[in-house]
This record gives sequence, structure tokens and C-alpha cells, in this order.
Amino acid sequence: MTEPYTLILLRHGQSQWNELNLFTGWVDVRLTDQGRGEATRGGELLAEQGVLPDVVHTSLLSRAIQTANLALDAADRLWIPVKRSWRLNERHYGALQGKDKAQTLEEFGPEQFMLWRRSFDVPPPLLADDSEFSQVGDPRYADIDGELPRTESLKLVIDRLLPYWEEEIAPDLRTGKTVMVAAHGNSLRGLVKHLEGISDDDIAELNIPTGIPLVYKLDEDLAPLGPGEYLDPEAAAAGAAAVAAQGKK
Amino acid sequence: MTEPYTLILLRHGQSQWNELNLFTGWVDVRLTDQGRGEATRGGELLAEQGVLPDVVHTSLLSRAIQTANLALDAADRLWIPVKRSWRLNERHYGALQGKDKAQTLEEFGPEQFMLWRRSFDVPPPLLADDSEFSQVGDPRYADIDGELPRTESLKLVIDRLLPYWEEEIAPDLRTGKTVMVAAHGNSLRGLVKHLEGISDDDIAELNIPTGIPLVYKLDEDLAPLGPGEYLDPEAAAAGAAAVAAQGKK
Repeated sequence: MTEPYTLILLRHGQSQWNELNLFTGWVDVRLTDQGRGEATRGGELLAEQGVLPDVVHTSLLSRAIQTANLALDAADRLWIPVKRSWRLNERHYGALQGKDKAQTLEEFGPEQFMLWRRSFDVPPPLLADDSEFSQVGDPRYADIDGELPRTESLKLVIDRLLPYWEEEIAPDLRTGKTVMVAAHGNSLRGLVKHLEGISDDDIAELNIPTGIPLVYKLDEDLAPLGPGEYLDPEAAAAGAAAVAAQGKK
Repeated sequence: MTEPYTLILLRHGQSQWNELNLFTGWVDVRLTDQGRGEATRGGELLAEQGVLPDVVHTSLLSRAIQTANLALDAADRLWIPVKRSWRLNERHYGALQGKDKAQTLEEFGPEQFMLWRRSFDVPPPLLADDSEFSQVGDPRYADIDGELPRTESLKLVIDRLLPYWEEEIAPDLRTGKTVMVAAHGNSLRGLVKHLEGISDDDIAELNIPTGIPLVYKLDEDLAPLGPGEYLDPEAAAAGAAAVAAQGKK
């Protein structure tokens, strides 16, 4: 092979519910002004360092799509092809969606809280279909009716993510295109776990900061040629620490 | 047939070069704040009147893509599938690209000026490949190298537009999807000419205002069931008059 493949992962910036410290999951909240600024800065980093996507994949959630749009605008790549899938959505947080993180921590205690947040295969309780935070009936999911989750563990996220990786993202990479994935904390953790072969236990420690492009060089089998590199490593370290501290306030 | 098909045409709002009164064509300028506001208002009209696109087609020019993104954001439809093509681009304005409209009018006289602006099949002089306003070498057109225009008449726009209409837009309509096309004054005039069967002479009189969704109901042969309807007819009439007056100041 002559050139390694290039994959860019971009986690959306601050959303309205990040700011309010609520569990969001599949609830379709928008970016805050800070989040919009993060997305634009992410695109500026792409432009400054010449890591220019040829195609972008996003989830169906507005905050990831806003992030992609703002970053591509800043990188002068608005014109590239776009593909979207629910399989890149954030983890469905079940009955926790819409709940205050600090309150949940207090109500259920730190052990249960961290189990829901960071265990590999323990999903929160199911979200009721008649909840105001349910996605039942949302037209964007009309096509996936039978597969619409009511809660998910990280394991379940990976189970629904990998078919999309194999069928849509990997083929784009294999044509030599630089692929950007604009998505969420947990769908990107799932993808990084798969790429780097991180164990079910160790993935709990991985925190991906928002708005800073994470770039992988991949060999012809789509195995990373080294660890992923943030285009702003200093900001990334500070951001990951902030994510790890979430809900602890 | 039970339900007519729905097609939404949306012309981008004011761009930086509209504001400066320059011929733009394929030069990739962005929207002004006013243009961004027009796009958002267009999306609000879609939401208010319940005309919600299921899929959007855009040109490869940033001002049309910005318009689609802002309108879809306002209509809460950011998540719909997106397709893009150079075949929806604005008319290539040849050697006039980058020139002041009023100056051009003065330099060449009203007859030549209107011939270039409104004749059906007289393209302006070719744009030189080494012009700062040329698209030769622009990566977004790498795939269409042999077909990259150096100037276009409206006739040539229609010639390159119709294959995309037939192969990409019409099939989406036939699946019953509401299709939005976010594009430009002349590519949309070309599409309306085709849809409504307007003659080569009469098309000169058609002016499409910016930022106001124009909605067609189509039968199963994709023939309009009536004239296209603007979602804000009053603003549309004022806007069309403003377009007709362009360059006359």
C-alpha cells in the first residue's frame, strides 16, 4: 500500500443538555453557543493542519449534524458527500433520558451511577414509550421501527454500530477517501474500542473530548498504524479530564 | 394515484457578491447575514405550513448548502438524507465572473448586457483557466474534469441539469418523498422551464425570488398539477421584482 487511510472522529460540542447536566441519549437537543464555537474550532483545526475530509458520516441527531455542518463550513468542505445513520447515534440512555445527572447520582448512589455510565453491558432501565423523552413516533426513525432501542449499554451501541462501520464507512475508507465521522461520546467510544481492540473493562477509562478532531491512520485491513492523534493535544487532554469529571459535581 | 408528489425549490438568499453586485456564477462566495436570515425564514415557512422535506438535493456551492442547512435547521429536518451535485450549480458566467454588474452594463451597453443575462442560448465569453475566478483545479470538481464549464448559457445549464433531474431527483419523487432542491437563480429557472414547459423566449421573464420555498404538486408523470406556489406569495412578488431590477441601478 502506498498511503495509509485517514479517519477523522469528531465528537459534538456542548449541547443544551450538557450545559444543564441532563442525560441526553437520543433526545434531540441542539448545540449551545459554546458548542457551536467548538465545532467551528474543530473545522479550523482540520483546515490549519490540512486534514480535509472527502466524505462525512453523521448520526441522525441534530447536535452531531450541526457540528459537522459548522466544522465543514470552517474547513471550506461544505460540498463533500454526506451520509447519515441512526447507527451513529448516541447511546440510548433509557429511563435516564431527561434526568439530572447530579440528582441521579444522589438518588441511586455512586456505584449504580457509574455502572450505568461506564459498565460495558449494563443498560439503564427501559424508557417507557409514552415518555416525553421517547423516540417512538419520531419520523426520522420510521424506517427502523423494529430496531428502535428503549435503552442501550455500550455493548448494544457497538452491536448496532458495527454493521454501519463495515457496510458504509469501511468501503469509503478503502477507496482512499479521508472519512470524517461526526457523532457522540459513546458511539465514538464504541468505534475506538473496535479499532484499537480495547477490552470491555478498559473502555470505561476512555473519555473522548468534544470538538477536537481525532485522527487515525489505518492500514489496508483498517487497523490503526498508531494511536489516534488529536489535532490539538493540549486541549484534548483538558477536555477528556472534564468529561471524566462529569456528574461528579 | 392517491397523493400528488411534492417538490420544493429554494433559491439561496443574499450572498456576499449579490451584495457587492458582482457576477458570481461558480465562484464560491458565502451568504451574508441577510442571506442567512432569508434561509432560516424559508425553513420556518416550511415548518409553519407543514411542507416538510424528506430528502434534499443541493449544488456544490457553499451558498446553496448553507441555505439548505439553515432552512432544515429551522424546520427541524437536519437529519434527512442529502445529495449534492455540480449539475445543480448556478450558471457558469464565463468571463463575467467577478465583474461588477453595473460596470458591465455601462461597458457593453444594455443590449449586450441583457443578451448575456437573459438570452436562452448566448453564453458570455469563456473564462480563462488562469483567471482567479476559474474553477480549474478546485477539488470539488475533480470528478467532472472533462465536463467542467468555462461559460454557460441557460440552455447549457438545462443540458447538464436534466440528467440529474431524471436520474436522481425524479426517482426520489416517485418513491413518494417530498423533495427539496436548494440551488440557484438560473439552475432553478432551468428546472421550472422544464417542469412548466416554458418556451425559450418566455423564460427570460421568469424571476425566482430568494429564500422563499416554491412548492409544486406533480402528477405521476411528474407534470405540475398547477402553477408552483410560494409559501409567502407577498414576499415572493416583491422579491421577484427586486431580481428583475438587478443590474439596473
